Amino acid sequence: MKKPLIVQKFGGTSVGSIERIENVAEQIIKAKNDGNQVVVVVSAMSGETNRLMDLAKQVDDVPCARELDVLLSSGEQVSMALLAMMLSKLGHPARSLTGGQAHIITDGQHNDATIKHIDTKVIKDLLAQEQIVIVAGFQGINDNGDITTLGRGGSDTSAVVLAGALAADECQIFTDVDGVYTSDPRVVPSAQKMEVIDFPSMTEMARKGAKVLHLPCVEFAWSNNLPLRVLSSFTPSQGTLVTGDIGDKPVVGIAIQREMSLIHIDNTYLSSVQKQCQMLGIAIWNVIEHPERAGIVIKRDANAKLSLVFGDKIRNSEEVSLLTTVGLQAKGLKDHAHELLCQQDVSVSHISTTDRTLVFVVLPNCVDKAANILHDAYITESEAFDCQQKHAFLD
Amino acid sequence: MKKPLIVQKFGGTSVGSIERIENVAEQIIKAKNDGNQVVVVVSAMSGETNRLMDLAKQVDDVPCARELDVLLSSGEQVSMALLAMMLSKLGHPARSLTGGQAHIITDGQHNDATIKHIDTKVIKDLLAQEQIVIVAGFQGINDNGDITTLGRGGSDTSAVVLAGALAADECQIFTDVDGVYTSDPRVVPSAQKMEVIDFPSMTEMARKGAKVLHLPCVEFAWSNNLPLRVLSSFTPSQGTLVTGDIGDKPVVGIAIQREMSLIHIDNTYLSSVQKQCQMLGIAIWNVIEHPERAGIVIKRDANAKLSLVFGDKIRNSEEVSLLTTVGLQAKGLKDHAHELLCQQDVSVSHISTTDRTLVFVVLPNCVDKAANILHDAYITESEAFDCQQKHAFLD
Repeated sequence: MKKPLIVQKFGGTSVGSIERIENVAEQIIKAKNDGNQVVVVVSAMSGETNRLMDLAKQVDDVPCARELDVLLSSGEQVSMALLAMMLSKLGHPARSLTGGQAHIITDGQHNDATIKHIDTKVIKDLLAQEQIVIVAGFQGINDNGDITTLGRGGSDTSAVVLAGALAADECQIFTDVDGVYTSDPRVVPSAQKMEVIDFPSMTEMARKGAKVLHLPCVEFAWSNNLPLRVLSSFTPSQGTLVTGDIGDKPVVGIAIQREMSLIHIDNTYLSSVQKQCQMLGIAIWNVIEHPERAGIVIKRDANAKLSLVFGDKIRNSEEVSLLTTVGLQAKGLKDHAHELLCQQDVSVSHISTTDRTLVFVVLPNCVDKAANILHDAYITESEAFDCQQKHAFLD
Repeated sequence: MKKPLIVQKFGGTSVGSIERIENVAEQIIKAKNDGNQVVVVVSAMSGETNRLMDLAKQVDDVPCARELDVLLSSGEQVSMALLAMMLSKLGHPARSLTGGQAHIITDGQHNDATIKHIDTKVIKDLLAQEQIVIVAGFQGINDNGDITTLGRGGSDTSAVVLAGALAADECQIFTDVDGVYTSDPRVVPSAQKMEVIDFPSMTEMARKGAKVLHLPCVEFAWSNNLPLRVLSSFTPSQGTLVTGDIGDKPVVGIAIQREMSLIHIDNTYLSSVQKQCQMLGIAIWNVIEHPERAGIVIKRDANAKLSLVFGDKIRNSEEVSLLTTVGLQAKGLKDHAHELLCQQDVSVSHISTTDRTLVFVVLPNCVDKAANILHDAYITESEAFDCQQKHAFLD
């Protein structure tokens, strides 16, 4: 029988020191000993990319994009070599591959390249020789053989695209948290780790502020029917499995997105501002169509850019946060949730819904309170309720 | 008319900081503005190779050789990218190439590879586009596409072999001294920088202890009829040109080699010890055939290895230095030089000659004094004498 193939991705913190590299090596060996073929994607050691970027900035404020990629890609070359050495020392033959050696072909967009194709023959040959294959994340080569890098979240992208190309059985993203939570546990103390989350819910959670997975990675995995698992590099656990097209929970989680701006616009300009935003590459998170209080919600750091273009058409802007309840029945909770928030003096600037989301635009200083209110009402309480029902049934 | 092509090699100290990289960039631009096509070979920034080696040693005392090459080769990737950025910033388009991208094909001997072939098409195409081409020194790839490194003196080797493959007009080795001296100026205050030195003399100087150029580089350049120039990265000067098959000076220089051992061996074992040394890869610098005082001279750090094998056949060993006078007439000075040294209480353990060398084996504590005596007699004095003759002739 063919062995299952898993792709494991370890970020910069996970390989940030020799001790941690040893810890990572042990996790890889465990997966191999469990009967899997293992391909590993690594980031640069934490701090390394910043160190290299500092050097580049000392040369030029806007360094030559091609050469910046040559520079930055050296970071993963260091971590992957150290990890392969560690595995060899522990008795498990391993081979490291740069983006180019792994035939990860990208477009030519230096510093923000997109993977076009991966020729997996080299990797498959090494797997057939029982090797553990370590691939540099975040990097590839273009058609000319120039080194390219993928931009933000690059190593996660490398891992899921590689897992897709290899038709892997699972792509495991090792990070500094031990899974996907029903909300940010630093804000909502009762937030719980999920064992499983469905792709559409995970997509909405990522889109609306959950930082644990990058949205494009979730979308790619979903469209390739590739199970994703988020788990901790430091604490052994099963983490959270992202899989399935339909979830069964009415409410899955509460996502928080801070540092947003609500831009009030004269209603007559709304559609032209929307068009202009598209041309400028500014993502609109919410559109508020209202004869007197029309507006859009964008990231705060895109605000200045927009003000430059629309000085006179923008009435004013205010800092806001977005609180998104995700789940099959989230939108049905609109009035009930609004009432709950009002009862506890959370002032809501705007409400919108989609098929699986209920979005409140609130002031930044009450988003944490609001998150706890909704989480307690629809996630903690509902599970307590489920529990009570079960107990009643069993008694 | 076709522009001259020069290859410039800059070592780790020359690119050890952003300021120094800027200084290097200015020297490259000067060469380009003087009408040359320029290919540059760089080492890793000074300290970087040690830093990487320390990381590897933390993983494993004897790190996996393949992965050590992956690790160490990242060092030149950093320096070449920074240099290319700097050149771009200063308005001169430049392109960096790893050993693999430059198609430097080596054998598979990780950590000590030999260049087999360089396909220069990529470099020539970039030169035709008026680009400055920066190539990572010290590295290549083997036939499988694995990264390899060349071992000691690797970047110098990269530079001369690349210059040979490109049929360059000159290969310039930038270093921390401003040329080749008649002897080590730290030892012999009257040592003079040479403007020109012939290949056979340079070969003997390098073989017998002059550190400024690695012997295999000189031999390669000589056999490829490639003019070499040694010059300072820090002080502008013409440096020293190494060229020509025959020198015209009776005595060219005095080379000093320290940290040697004179091993006394029973005469009957001499030939078997010589054979064994060859098998062990221990270089014999001198053989002393004598019924009672037979022996060989080897590097001190090979002594332990030899003792292990020949415990009982070795009578004793003593620390010595070698002092080699190089030049067409050096061997003819044997008796005169010996007398000079004896007059000044330098005790000589052994004397030998070759076509272009006169070698004294002396005690380490008198090699500096001996070097000054011979240098004064055959180089400083002889030039004073030449001068007097010229003056007499002109008067």
